[in-house]
Amino acid sequence: MSTNSSQMPSARELYSLDNPIFCCYVFWATVLVAKMLLMSTLTAVQRFRYKIFPNQEDLFFKNTEVQFNDPHVERVRRAHRNDMENILPYFIMALIYISTNPDATVACNLFRVASVARLVHTLVYAVYPVPQPARVIAFASMQLITFYMAAVVALRTLRFI
Amino acid sequence: MSTNSSQMPSARELYSLDNPIFCCYVFWATVLVAKMLLMSTLTAVQRFRYKIFPNQEDLFFKNTEVQFNDPHVERVRRAHRNDMENILPYFIMALIYISTNPDATVACNLFRVASVARLVHTLVYAVYPVPQPARVIAFASMQLITFYMAAVVALRTLRFI
Amino acid sequence: MSTNSSQMPSARELYSLDNPIFCCYVFWATVLVAKMLLMSTLTAVQRFRYKIFPNQEDLFFKNTEVQFNDPHVERVRRAHRNDMENILPYFIMALIYISTNPDATVACNLFRVASVARLVHTLVYAVYPVPQPARVIAFASMQLITFYMAAVVALRTLRFI
Repeated sequence: MSTNSSQMPSARELYSLDNPIFCCYVFWATVLVAKMLLMSTLTAVQRFRYKIFPNQEDLFFKNTEVQFNDPHVERVRRAHRNDMENILPYFIMALIYISTNPDATVACNLFRVASVARLVHTLVYAVYPVPQPARVIAFASMQLITFYMAAVVALRTLRFI
Repeated sequence: MSTNSSQMPSARELYSLDNPIFCCYVFWATVLVAKMLLMSTLTAVQRFRYKIFPNQEDLFFKNTEVQFNDPHVERVRRAHRNDMENILPYFIMALIYISTNPDATVACNLFRVASVARLVHTLVYAVYPVPQPARVIAFASMQLITFYMAAVVALRTLRFI
Repeated sequence: MSTNSSQMPSARELYSLDNPIFCCYVFWATVLVAKMLLMSTLTAVQRFRYKIFPNQEDLFFKNTEVQFNDPHVERVRRAHRNDMENILPYFIMALIYISTNPDATVACNLFRVASVARLVHTLVYAVYPVPQPARVIAFASMQLITFYMAAVVALRTLRFI
């Protein structure tokens, strides 16, 4: 890995705000974290709108009982679960991808496309459902980008298996 | 970001045990990881106590069948899912928040309050359910702290959009 | 922590590909990320095979309706959720464990055993179900390793509580 040490910025500065690639990752990761937290809020909005609560202690209204499987609540919960399945592994994958010191233009555009795709995914899944293949395309965008990063990183570190 | 490099500790040492902020993050992240793993144990305890198993190969007792939707098991599973929805994004958000080299007192106290709040959340949700708003307050504490970190980081890295 | 700074590699280079421990973590984290993403693909395969779709806009075949709780689909989804519950906290725990600059042989073998155990877990849970205790052993392997790392890290950073 001596080739790496001779590059600018040196390997030891990759995880700092001196590295524009890390800055771009940090910005878009922040957007995705905020988006994910808002899914909890959206679930709460749906629960209050349709008065669907899963715990005895949450029954804020009289004459309601614990209820599950309401389609409006469950749609948001499926979208939220899909976020966890895809965005959380992406966070780690993109973070370690930075350690390979990739080309800045390529890396930043991957972060941008993947993140915007997930914003679109939430819109077409949980906010305003539209016909397929809108959701499939949004889903596949981040997944393919994560696989690409995985391939780059795996080839680079294969001898440490 | 040249201002950052002139500070002590320099940007390149932010992610090391030489940085007290990172140490504090590391300690409390470890507590939360252990707490999350114990949710699996708690789920298993409830499954054995009420003999509720979701897979054919898990039927350790005679005369039992696969069963779902037991309220005691599902309560722990909801608490565990809520952990994943909130703590896992917090791990990434707090980690990249450290890259902005925040004030040590502010940062450490944010980590402490957020982490203790989630311990309380588990107690009042999965271990010993108490009336609201106990759980809502515990939930909101980490969420607001994560949003605060997101705002700090997003403003700092906005030009890398 | 001055002892740490005097070691080779110095603390500031722990999170770079110059550190073989980090390389080993990176390789196996990449394998686990790819494995987790393939769970989504496996879920999709099961959904098409048994024509079980949870959203109105996903009904690609005539004469199908939204359906839930199909045992073939739900088994893969339980395995996927179990991945999220265990692998995602492991990613963070192992990452911060590296900051303690552990012995390379110990650390790398922990990463290898934990990762291979989760590959086995997926095989015996979602792909080809086998009798217990195969799944319990695979599950416990990564969990015990994560707890071990948590203990090492917590003892090292306890004074930052």
